[in-house]
Amino acid sequence: MTTISTAQARLHHHREQFPALANKLYFNYGGQGTMPKATMDTINQTIAHIQDIGPFGNEAGNWLTAQMQTVREAIASELNVTTDTIAFTDNVTVGCNIAMWGISWQAGDHILLSDCEHPGVIATTQELSRRFGVEVSICPLKATLNEGDPVAIIAQNLRPQTRLVVLSHVFWNTGQVLPVEKIVEVCRNNNSFLLIDAAQSVGALPLNLTELGVDFYAFTGHKWLCGPEGVGGLYVRPEVLNSLHPTFIGLYGIIVDSHSQPVDWKPDARRYEVSTPAYPLYFGLREAIAIHQQWGTPQERYAQICRNSEYLWQRLAALPDVKCLCTAPPECGIVSFQLTNHHSLKLVQFLDTQKILTRTIADPSCTRATVHYLTLESEIDQLVEAVAQFCRIG
Amino acid sequence: MTTISTAQARLHHHREQFPALANKLYFNYGGQGTMPKATMDTINQTIAHIQDIGPFGNEAGNWLTAQMQTVREAIASELNVTTDTIAFTDNVTVGCNIAMWGISWQAGDHILLSDCEHPGVIATTQELSRRFGVEVSICPLKATLNEGDPVAIIAQNLRPQTRLVVLSHVFWNTGQVLPVEKIVEVCRNNNSFLLIDAAQSVGALPLNLTELGVDFYAFTGHKWLCGPEGVGGLYVRPEVLNSLHPTFIGLYGIIVDSHSQPVDWKPDARRYEVSTPAYPLYFGLREAIAIHQQWGTPQERYAQICRNSEYLWQRLAALPDVKCLCTAPPECGIVSFQLTNHHSLKLVQFLDTQKILTRTIADPSCTRATVHYLTLESEIDQLVEAVAQFCRIG
Repeated sequence: MTTISTAQARLHHHREQFPALANKLYFNYGGQGTMPKATMDTINQTIAHIQDIGPFGNEAGNWLTAQMQTVREAIASELNVTTDTIAFTDNVTVGCNIAMWGISWQAGDHILLSDCEHPGVIATTQELSRRFGVEVSICPLKATLNEGDPVAIIAQNLRPQTRLVVLSHVFWNTGQVLPVEKIVEVCRNNNSFLLIDAAQSVGALPLNLTELGVDFYAFTGHKWLCGPEGVGGLYVRPEVLNSLHPTFIGLYGIIVDSHSQPVDWKPDARRYEVSTPAYPLYFGLREAIAIHQQWGTPQERYAQICRNSEYLWQRLAALPDVKCLCTAPPECGIVSFQLTNHHSLKLVQFLDTQKILTRTIADPSCTRATVHYLTLESEIDQLVEAVAQFCRIG
Repeated sequence: MTTISTAQARLHHHREQFPALANKLYFNYGGQGTMPKATMDTINQTIAHIQDIGPFGNEAGNWLTAQMQTVREAIASELNVTTDTIAFTDNVTVGCNIAMWGISWQAGDHILLSDCEHPGVIATTQELSRRFGVEVSICPLKATLNEGDPVAIIAQNLRPQTRLVVLSHVFWNTGQVLPVEKIVEVCRNNNSFLLIDAAQSVGALPLNLTELGVDFYAFTGHKWLCGPEGVGGLYVRPEVLNSLHPTFIGLYGIIVDSHSQPVDWKPDARRYEVSTPAYPLYFGLREAIAIHQQWGTPQERYAQICRNSEYLWQRLAALPDVKCLCTAPPECGIVSFQLTNHHSLKLVQFLDTQKILTRTIADPSCTRATVHYLTLESEIDQLVEAVAQFCRIG
C-alpha cells in the first residue's frame, strides 16, 4: 500500500506541470495532449531569444540549427532510431502525404487500406487514384477488434500490384492495436511498402522502429507526446530513402551550390522538409518529451496507460446501459463505448457541461474516452459516475 | 520641420513594440521580420487559453475555428481579396508547391521561370520535370534590373506548351519589382497559369490581388508582415480554383459524410489546407498585421519603405568602394550592393560584430540590406558609416 500511495503522490505532483489538468477531467489525449508548462515556457523563451539574437542572421541561424538537432535526438530516442531517419512535418497527415506522393506510381498499381483509416488519408488515396490510375481497395479490419486475424486478412488482400499498404498502428476509432511486426513481414514478402499512421501510437506505445522494420511511420507531436499543435514527423527506413522521392520541396531539403542552384537532396530524411518551420514549437516538443521521460520509460508509461484503460473499461462495462467496443481490456489508452438507450452526442454534451472532455466517433458510432499515464483513478471514477448519471436521467 | 519631428517621434514610439529593434541595427527584413510584442503576447495567451478550455473538445474547436476566420480576414484585408481565396500554408515555399503540384501535368508541358527564383522553387520544377516529362526553361530577367523590358522577355520565352510561369513579384537578390499586372496579361493571352512568389512583396508593397488578376500568389507571414515563423498562405484566384487540384490532402481540406468518409473538397481555398495547424502562431500574425495597420495604410508603409531605401541607396552609392546593383532608387526595401575591393562575406561578418545584421547573396554576389517602414534614418546612417569603416580598414 505504501508503494501505491507514493506512486499516486508522485503522479499528483507530476500532473501539476500540466495546466490543462487543473480545471477539468480530460479524456481527449487521442485528439490532443495536455501541454506541460515547461513546453509553454520554452516556446515563449525561444520566441524572445530569437528576437534578441536576430531574428534573421548568422547567430540565430546557427543557434536554431543546433537546437533543431536536439529535437531530432529527443524524437529519435522515443522511437529508437537514428536522427537521420526523421523528417520534421506539421502533423501526421503531412507525413502520410509525403510517403503516399513520393512513390513512383504507375497506372494499375494498388494501394491497400484498412476500413479504420483517417479520412485525410482516404482522401489522399482517392486523389492518387484519379491522377495516376492507381487502384485503391479497403480490407475489413474493424471486425477483427475482438476476434479474427488482421494479418491474415491483410495477406489475403495483397495483390501482386500492391505497391503500398496504409494502416494505423492503433485505430483511432476502436483503439485496436495492429501487430505491425507481423504486417511488416507480409508486406515485405509482397514487395509492398508499408506506411503506418502513428497518430495514436507515438507517445503511447513503447516503440523500436529500427527493429520493427516499417518503411514509413508518420506521427504527430501534439497528441500523446503532449507537444504543441503544428509539429510532427515522418520516419523513413534508411533502406527505402532513395525509393521515396521528395514531393513538396524547398530550401531545407536540398543542397545548393555556390550560386544558390539546387544540386542534390540532403543525404538523409531532411530531404522531405520544405522551408522555415515553427522552431519554437519544436523546442517545446523536446521539453514535453523530456518531462515524460522524467516520469518513466516508454514501457512504464505504456503499462500505466494500460492499467488506466483496463480500469475504465472494467468500470464502464459494469454499467447496465453501456457496451464497450472491446470485449477484453484495451491494449492502448483508447476506450470506446456505446450506450444502449442514448446517443453518444448527447452524452458528450452532458459530460462537457460537467467539464469532462470526451468525443464522439462517427464509425462505429460511439463515445471515445482516452486515458494517458497522467490520468488519475479518481478521474476515471468521476467519468464513470457521470456516464451512469446520464444513463439514469439522460 | 515640426511634421517630420512628429513623424519621427511617432515612429520611435511605434518601434518600442518590437523588442528585436532594441539591441541591434536590423537590415534583414527580407529574411525575417521583427516580431511585435503583441504577437508574442498573443501566442503565449492563446497557448494558455487552449489549455484552459481544452485542448481538445467542442469549446476549443469552436473557438479556434472562429478565430482562424479573423486571421483570414486580416490577411484578406492586406491583399484586397475575399477570405475564400486564402489557404493557410507554413510559408511561401509550401504555397508555391501547392500551385506547382496541383496542375494536371502532361509530358511536353512547359514551365517558365526567371533566373532570379528561389532555389526551393527551382528544385520543385526539376522534380516535376523528372516525374512528368515537363520541360523547364529559364528566361534572363536579372539583366533587366536597370535596363530592358522584362515583360517583353517573358513574352518571347512563352511557348504554346507553357502551362505555368513562376516569377517573384520582388526578386529576393536584386530587389527588382516586376510589373506583374502586365505579366498577367501576356500569360493569360498564352493560356498559361501565373504563380507569383510573394516572399518579398506581401507586407511591403500595397496589393490588390483582386484587380491584379494573378492566378496563384504564395506568401509568408514571417518576413515583411513580421509574424512568427511557420505561418503563411496561398491566394488562389476563384476562377482557377477548380483547375488546381489539392495535392497534400487532409481533414481540413475535405468534407466528410456522417460516416467520416470524404465526399468532396471544401468549397473554397481551404481545400489546400491539410490538418491541425499551429493556431497560436496564426493569431500572432493577425496581431502583427493590426499593428502595421495602426501605423499606416499599405500605401503609407510602402512610401516610407521607399524613402528609407532611397536614402540608404543614395548614401551607399556615394561611398567610393561601393557599387549598388540598382542604378536608380530601389522600388522596394531591398538594397543590394557590392564592394569593389572586398568580399561581401567579410563585410557581413564585420557588421555582425557591430550588431548590424545584413546578409550575403550568392548570385549576384553581393550584400543585401533591407529596410522596412520601421527603419530609422539614424540606423541607415550607422550602417553606411560601418560599411565605410570596413572599406577603409577591411
